[in-house]
Amino acid sequence: MSFYKSFRKELHTIEKELERSLESNSPVIQEASIHLLKAGGKRIRPIFVILSAHFGPTYNQKEVAKVAVSLELIHMASLVHDDVIDHSDMRRGNPTVRAQWNNQVAMYTGDFIFSRALSSIGNIEMKEMHERLAHTMLEICKGEIIQIDYQQVIHQNLRDYLRRIKRKTALLLSSSCELGALVSEADRQTVGHMRRFGYFAGMAFQIVDDILDIVSTDEKLGKPAGSDLLNGHLTLPILHIKEDPEFVPYMKKAFEGTLTEVEREEMLTYIRQSGAIEKSQALSDRYLEKARKEIAHLPNNKAKKALEQIAAFIGERKY
Amino acid sequence: MSFYKSFRKELHTIEKELERSLESNSPVIQEASIHLLKAGGKRIRPIFVILSAHFGPTYNQKEVAKVAVSLELIHMASLVHDDVIDHSDMRRGNPTVRAQWNNQVAMYTGDFIFSRALSSIGNIEMKEMHERLAHTMLEICKGEIIQIDYQQVIHQNLRDYLRRIKRKTALLLSSSCELGALVSEADRQTVGHMRRFGYFAGMAFQIVDDILDIVSTDEKLGKPAGSDLLNGHLTLPILHIKEDPEFVPYMKKAFEGTLTEVEREEMLTYIRQSGAIEKSQALSDRYLEKARKEIAHLPNNKAKKALEQIAAFIGERKY
Repeated sequence: MSFYKSFRKELHTIEKELERSLESNSPVIQEASIHLLKAGGKRIRPIFVILSAHFGPTYNQKEVAKVAVSLELIHMASLVHDDVIDHSDMRRGNPTVRAQWNNQVAMYTGDFIFSRALSSIGNIEMKEMHERLAHTMLEICKGEIIQIDYQQVIHQNLRDYLRRIKRKTALLLSSSCELGALVSEADRQTVGHMRRFGYFAGMAFQIVDDILDIVSTDEKLGKPAGSDLLNGHLTLPILHIKEDPEFVPYMKKAFEGTLTEVEREEMLTYIRQSGAIEKSQALSDRYLEKARKEIAHLPNNKAKKALEQIAAFIGERKY
Repeated sequence: MSFYKSFRKELHTIEKELERSLESNSPVIQEASIHLLKAGGKRIRPIFVILSAHFGPTYNQKEVAKVAVSLELIHMASLVHDDVIDHSDMRRGNPTVRAQWNNQVAMYTGDFIFSRALSSIGNIEMKEMHERLAHTMLEICKGEIIQIDYQQVIHQNLRDYLRRIKRKTALLLSSSCELGALVSEADRQTVGHMRRFGYFAGMAFQIVDDILDIVSTDEKLGKPAGSDLLNGHLTLPILHIKEDPEFVPYMKKAFEGTLTEVEREEMLTYIRQSGAIEKSQALSDRYLEKARKEIAHLPNNKAKKALEQIAAFIGERKY
């Protein structure tokens, strides 16, 4: 991804800062946190903060890094807790904290990382940031609970799904862009554009994520394809076919945990051939189009070019 | 407890503020949080904040309430997560969140309350507070992980135990006193006295808690007596007898989860008659004496009287 290259130095600073902020004199926490950090991730929240900060008059790298680190830590902590809830053993091809250690260590590691995020937020000079970060964290927590409420619930519609992915992904990406613009004192209009860019890009990102869970391979996903359904999460492609008489028995077995390996393959094939993937892709494309429009009139700098590349990448990504 | 009466109005404000801060438009979170709030607790952290704030020149009730609410929320969140870890079904005679709902709801409710604490902290004017609260939260998280490390570990000594209860309880009580004094701009010496008072009182409080787990009744505890040992936690009384040949078989069975009801009673009787309770009580008394000395030279106001009553209550409490 070429857009990472242009901002390598900034990202490197943030990576170092993330490492530093997860240092601990408790060996278990230290190992679990570093395990998590080394497992990687796209660092899409930090990159959004950095890029958005390029649209304001004052780019202060130190402050930008604090905001980026806080957001990435909130994200990391919520992943560790999600893996406990979903009993997930693999993420990005690596064993999860709960798999490598246990649920107890995972829960407290999540708490520890949340606390570190809090420390990091405390160091940010602009008080406005504190409120927004606290608000974002709250909304994410609410989203997690809503996700439980909707687990294995057949009677849900597109609106329920969109509300869920908004909280799960789009909000934090939206905040990343908004806070990035704010920290470099961008004008109100630009802040608004960035916030909406992050929101639309985030919606598309999660829809693609949900598509990949079905169309990609176990190997590329680093976890079994179809995991969402096995965990009781009804994603966009599923909403399109959840009443197909041929599909219903698979879904039922997936929820009960009685789906065999062969049936999982059959189920994935059924979804892939149902047309549900294309319909979902079309919605993702509409969100990406909206995202692009938000930044169309912003000054043509290298950050804008990178944001356009990211939007294109989200639409085409295979991992 | 008469000291609660003198500060009823302040405590009432904080209770209302706690309720307000746990409001949510997610019905599950709302119910789980209110369930937790109504289950009560001694509100010892808020009362410590209020009392300590009376030793500074500027008592600003609104700011005092924000600090008290933040600390109580951190405490509440950590309890919800502890109950998940310990598989506890009862607390203070009420079903825990994990028992009433499930582990998933409990984990996210804890995250939600942490986030609310963060919001509440963000509203505090003095920036110094933010750092100290973040630091306190971090240390508590570390303590939780250390507690896991020491579960069912026979080879541990008094120092290990003291370090554990420091993080588990004394730190948050110490911070409550310190931050209470700071928020009303008490002088440095007074802040130090209050911090140490909270620490010593907190150490005594936890030792008494650990004693009560053995000498009290299931009914008064609102959970089975001996729960600590059943959960693999070696508390102070146990450290005194953990090598007694008569006791070892009980401890082994408690750890394995194979202790019968009759054996639990026998085990509790053994500990009660071993002299371990008296030795533990003596250490608690020494901490309380140190706590009293810290406040001895402070001005004689109604807050000081209340702190002395609390110290006496900790030593004698039966619940």
